Amino acid sequence: MSSSDQGLTALATPPRCIADFCLVPIGTPTASVSQEVAQVQRLLKKSGLKYSMHSAGTTVEGSWDDVMRVIGQCHAMLHERGVVRIQSDIRVGTRTDKKQGFKDKVEAVEKLLKDNE
Amino acid sequence: MSSSDQGLTALATPPRCIADFCLVPIGTPTASVSQEVAQVQRLLKKSGLKYSMHSAGTTVEGSWDDVMRVIGQCHAMLHERGVVRIQSDIRVGTRTDKKQGFKDKVEAVEKLLKDNE
Amino acid sequence: MSSSDQGLTALATPPRCIADFCLVPIGTPTASVSQEVAQVQRLLKKSGLKYSMHSAGTTVEGSWDDVMRVIGQCHAMLHERGVVRIQSDIRVGTRTDKKQGFKDKVEAVEKLLKDNE
Amino acid sequence: MSSSDQGLTALATPPRCIADFCLVPIGTPTASVSQEVAQVQRLLKKSGLKYSMHSAGTTVEGSWDDVMRVIGQCHAMLHERGVVRIQSDIRVGTRTDKKQGFKDKVEAVEKLLKDNE
Repeated sequence: MSSSDQGLTALATPPRCIADFCLVPIGTPTASVSQEVAQVQRLLKKSGLKYSMHSAGTTVEGSWDDVMRVIGQCHAMLHERGVVRIQSDIRVGTRTDKKQGFKDKVEAVEKLLKDNE
Repeated sequence: MSSSDQGLTALATPPRCIADFCLVPIGTPTASVSQEVAQVQRLLKKSGLKYSMHSAGTTVEGSWDDVMRVIGQCHAMLHERGVVRIQSDIRVGTRTDKKQGFKDKVEAVEKLLKDNE
Repeated sequence: MSSSDQGLTALATPPRCIADFCLVPIGTPTASVSQEVAQVQRLLKKSGLKYSMHSAGTTVEGSWDDVMRVIGQCHAMLHERGVVRIQSDIRVGTRTDKKQGFKDKVEAVEKLLKDNE
Repeated sequence: MSSSDQGLTALATPPRCIADFCLVPIGTPTASVSQEVAQVQRLLKKSGLKYSMHSAGTTVEGSWDDVMRVIGQCHAMLHERGVVRIQSDIRVGTRTDKKQGFKDKVEAVEKLLKDNE
């Protein structure tokens, strides 16, 4: 293996990311998913990461590894509680030009909307 | 064409849906997307549909056709303003068991979290 | 309403798009979704649109309205067959700089990979 | 912290998952993303994980941690090459009822389509 190969394999994941995930249990007896979503919120609270629930998912911010681990733990927790299949959609963004939390993103847009009223 | 084929082709799209979309312009000079997101919010306001912006996208509810048309119009509007390529991620849900708006979904989870505190 | 407002509301959706969708039935008795995915493939075949199934979804190309209508019809068809709740994730792209089909995208990448071998 | 809290925090992520991701660079000079996608394919090849590219993304299978790390490394690699902002959409599925690779999913649907012809 060349040193450039080793470089890629050892490449560190991003120190910061904002991820928004929407988790769907499959093959559950009812069409309601609110029980599962509530359990996910409890796990996120314990994680210590900054997060925010909205009607179409939950936004989390932190290092790439921390954020992805906690989403994986949500899957694992629901499997433990008997859900045999889970599908999540994750939108994840990383940037190197500035540190931006998920609240800053909404504020930037709201400022623009106000300025042009 | 058999009558069953005609049935499928003429099938009406769902009368209600909740969609959450995250639109990303590609090949723009800057890494900021807040200008584009603000323009999307203005177009949504004019559409008359119920919508709500959050840090990872915008949630809209209405008939399938109305919701998908307005998201398509967001693409068309940004193309008109010079963005040559746009990618959106849309999470869309439909259900026949009950009428549920996007605010009801959050309230259902919050109620569960409160009950179990 | 000003004439510019009317312009936005009447804005045509894009004449071409490539969409990739992954449909998930919720509250079905089993964790298998292959029956539903097969029914979706049959409906797509009848639509006359160009499409291609892969393990994580189905890619369709056509006008924005045609593509979104057929995905909505997939939801409607499965609701008719008794699925009470359906969630889809749709990745949709539009561009004005060139006409590119979904096969062209893969070929462009494969060419780059070959050139640099 | 109660022992049940500790249990949640230490929860292992799923041993297997199938993820499909679509990575989009933001703020790049051109609307083409094929260079970036080609670099992602090279990194995946070196990872040793099973993967498959299609026109709307790349499917990878492996343990949750391995799969998420390699996607994070794709972001990190493109940042190193000067892309300041990257957005990915990841569809990820886990199941405990059977071991299913991404090729098996397509075959299950194709079998159904054949049986009913």
